[in-house]
Amino acid sequence: MTRILATPSQLAEARDARAAYRAGAIAPTSGVAHGLVQANLISVPADWAYDVLLYAQRNPQACPVLEVLDAGATESLLAPGSDLRTDIPQYRVWRDGELAEEPTDASTAWEEHPDLVSFLIGCSFTFEAGLVDAGIEVRHQTLGRNVPMYRTNRACTPAGRLTGELVVSMRPIPGDRVADAVQISGRYPAVHGAPVHVGDAAGLGIADVQAPDFGDAPEIRTGEVPVFWACGVTPQAAIMASKPPFALTHAPGYMFVTDVPDANYMV
Amino acid sequence: MTRILATPSQLAEARDARAAYRAGAIAPTSGVAHGLVQANLISVPADWAYDVLLYAQRNPQACPVLEVLDAGATESLLAPGSDLRTDIPQYRVWRDGELAEEPTDASTAWEEHPDLVSFLIGCSFTFEAGLVDAGIEVRHQTLGRNVPMYRTNRACTPAGRLTGELVVSMRPIPGDRVADAVQISGRYPAVHGAPVHVGDAAGLGIADVQAPDFGDAPEIRTGEVPVFWACGVTPQAAIMASKPPFALTHAPGYMFVTDVPDANYMV
Repeated sequence: MTRILATPSQLAEARDARAAYRAGAIAPTSGVAHGLVQANLISVPADWAYDVLLYAQRNPQACPVLEVLDAGATESLLAPGSDLRTDIPQYRVWRDGELAEEPTDASTAWEEHPDLVSFLIGCSFTFEAGLVDAGIEVRHQTLGRNVPMYRTNRACTPAGRLTGELVVSMRPIPGDRVADAVQISGRYPAVHGAPVHVGDAAGLGIADVQAPDFGDAPEIRTGEVPVFWACGVTPQAAIMASKPPFALTHAPGYMFVTDVPDANYMV
Repeated sequence: MTRILATPSQLAEARDARAAYRAGAIAPTSGVAHGLVQANLISVPADWAYDVLLYAQRNPQACPVLEVLDAGATESLLAPGSDLRTDIPQYRVWRDGELAEEPTDASTAWEEHPDLVSFLIGCSFTFEAGLVDAGIEVRHQTLGRNVPMYRTNRACTPAGRLTGELVVSMRPIPGDRVADAVQISGRYPAVHGAPVHVGDAAGLGIADVQAPDFGDAPEIRTGEVPVFWACGVTPQAAIMASKPPFALTHAPGYMFVTDVPDANYMV
């Protein structure tokens, strides 16, 4: 589907980043390879694949599927030469819904389950490039932190054995740029699209916006409004709630960097 | 997901239409319940559901999934009170990839396979309302005919046991309205979105634009350009090519009329 190709310098940055993560480097990926799509990972044994794909279909704003690999496959079409077992900075291994470990290399986990089906799910880091290009500060990038993410009180639509709540990411946006942020992100429905909520975090059942469930605490300045987008960590909440025997995911904020320009997903 | 509700008169039209089809009325549905979403149907035995959902995910422009019902379920969330076994004007029953019959009631077929999983897939009739509202004539509506549809030489991305080619629908558009038609339909990525091809049908491997594979022959007038959109009959081409033991679909052009306004799928 890639019609708009990455520039040589973008490609070099993406490939260098994946190579560094493969060699063991660990850092949140927000801002890496500006203008290229990043993706969330969830890999499950083949007999759970239909449930995951159906959950994604029924909750498309949180779980926009960019690619589904065949069982056992590890090279993404979105990044030729990639290896999903090694090219993400940090992983999470889940056993019966519990976080078991956070390795930087998932090869061992893959050896345990050679039939894993991997789903790459759109990430809001994609439209952050559009915000930055429009002169809207992405605070966690400025601060060199991970984006804050929160579990909410909004239930996702169940699918098969999967249930769980919506997870959101938050960016503080100046009041006079909220409309721009909505419109820019809204052009990317394949990577969460427009926000799900603007303003009071309590509206999503978030008790303390300064205490995110994943990522780092935000810095919200005077005149800024918290803006919440559906987040690709939502499948991890479903894992916690639904307890499949095994799952592999990225660590929140530590994404799979692809070779595909964001513009391919713009409406 | 429905946030924008249908008007009472739209709802009455949709419900009356479904009731008429349930009672045996047969007619193409283009133009019925103006402004409400119509959908393609494909129902397969549960052990084929993952292949269909994956095929749709990998070919989203042709197969944008609006709803996946649980195995055996027959009432669509997009039309409360509906029954997918009876509420479509005409069906196609497929056995081993061959068209076996075209009943107006699919209850008997359902009794054979009580585990059918039904997929409702977006239909280009949805954005036709937008074209009409913009003063762009939808010729097959004017003529009271079915839209012309064509098998093409473009292969879809395979998924599991499913392969097949892209099917397209065609509408002749005046040269000075092609850009408008592209932009209007492009706002509805969940119902095929922007055209896949404009102009010479040979570019899609279509030998004779006057001899569609499904629907009725077009009437292309001087100054008009053939504009081709991805079509929700694409899964039927996959059935023909891949020969699952059983499948149930709508008959091309005879769609499932929902209660959901098009605007819910506009970006």
